[in-house]
Amino acid sequence: MIRLYDYLESGNGYKVRLLLHQLEIPFERVELDITRGATRTPEFLAMNPNGRIPLLELEDGSRLAESNAIQFYLAEGTPLLPGDRLERSRVLQWMFFEQYSHEPYIAVLRFWVHTGAAEGMDEAVLQEKREKGHAALAVMESHLAERDFFVADAYSVADISLYAYTHVADQGGFDLAPYPALRAWIERVRAQPRHISITHPC
Amino acid sequence: MIRLYDYLESGNGYKVRLLLHQLEIPFERVELDITRGATRTPEFLAMNPNGRIPLLELEDGSRLAESNAIQFYLAEGTPLLPGDRLERSRVLQWMFFEQYSHEPYIAVLRFWVHTGAAEGMDEAVLQEKREKGHAALAVMESHLAERDFFVADAYSVADISLYAYTHVADQGGFDLAPYPALRAWIERVRAQPRHISITHPC
Repeated sequence: MIRLYDYLESGNGYKVRLLLHQLEIPFERVELDITRGATRTPEFLAMNPNGRIPLLELEDGSRLAESNAIQFYLAEGTPLLPGDRLERSRVLQWMFFEQYSHEPYIAVLRFWVHTGAAEGMDEAVLQEKREKGHAALAVMESHLAERDFFVADAYSVADISLYAYTHVADQGGFDLAPYPALRAWIERVRAQPRHISITHPC
Repeated sequence: MIRLYDYLESGNGYKVRLLLHQLEIPFERVELDITRGATRTPEFLAMNPNGRIPLLELEDGSRLAESNAIQFYLAEGTPLLPGDRLERSRVLQWMFFEQYSHEPYIAVLRFWVHTGAAEGMDEAVLQEKREKGHAALAVMESHLAERDFFVADAYSVADISLYAYTHVADQGGFDLAPYPALRAWIERVRAQPRHISITHPC
């Protein structure tokens, strides 16, 4: 059986969990508490030298890291990844946007609030995270103003990738009120068959 | 003809430039000075709402952003992107590693030094960039200790992606002396047919 090294609060882990559930692929979940260094042990670093979850382990023992690469692998040949060459690359475009322009602000601020780290922090550092996070949300809002989903007008792993931290952005202090198209898209993602919540262990 | 919106000093732009050159695909290059806000004009934001180069414009006018998504698109069906499903996802794994765990430290520090921004900066901020940059280099070193290239023992867009900012890491103050496998890999990348340097305009 496929094994997923995971952390239930992680949006990056949730991307893979949600996708596996929607694709009806059975898997075993191994919970690792990243707030207690569980991904920095010698045993885990031997499996993923970058020391991060999610990490997927296939039945033959081969492993794949990085939430969006894992999603691309799992969604291949399913309706959640377009077959067209340009559309597949657009899915990747939004996934790279997510990891570079969205996650480092929206997910990190949520993590800092969650762990209490935000409390002692320099206000200028928090403010920069907020501004760049809102810039990412504004890019999403303008794209969704004319579309139901991110790529090819169909629900895909690009939507899962961006949904993972956007729908809990409020937990990092982001108010989504100024983004009506984005809020409507969140509801559309939530309405997909076999949707699960972020802390659903499957 | 394909058009590339680009900035010559950018490693992200270089990835696409180098790949186009190696694939012998003719293209027109449009230079935009990102240090003077050339990617934040209303005209450019209408083409890429995220306001970044590189941006690829195909002959039919459709556009694709994010350096690694562009590389994936261009390399499809060539020897620079493996055909095997797991190997393709491993290429993506390293590209996501590059954008999340490498570029924000190694490229950003180089940019700060290049623009002079580093001079007035808080030493703790610079030190964090250095530490995380070295962590990324150490992950690469351990992977390359047993391999010639990042995926499937062949030169691919994963190597181009990681080479782009690694080979100029010294410009951000990173000493590559402690990474012999990485330095040997840099030479192997440099020895590939039709290699060009980072500031070669093609």
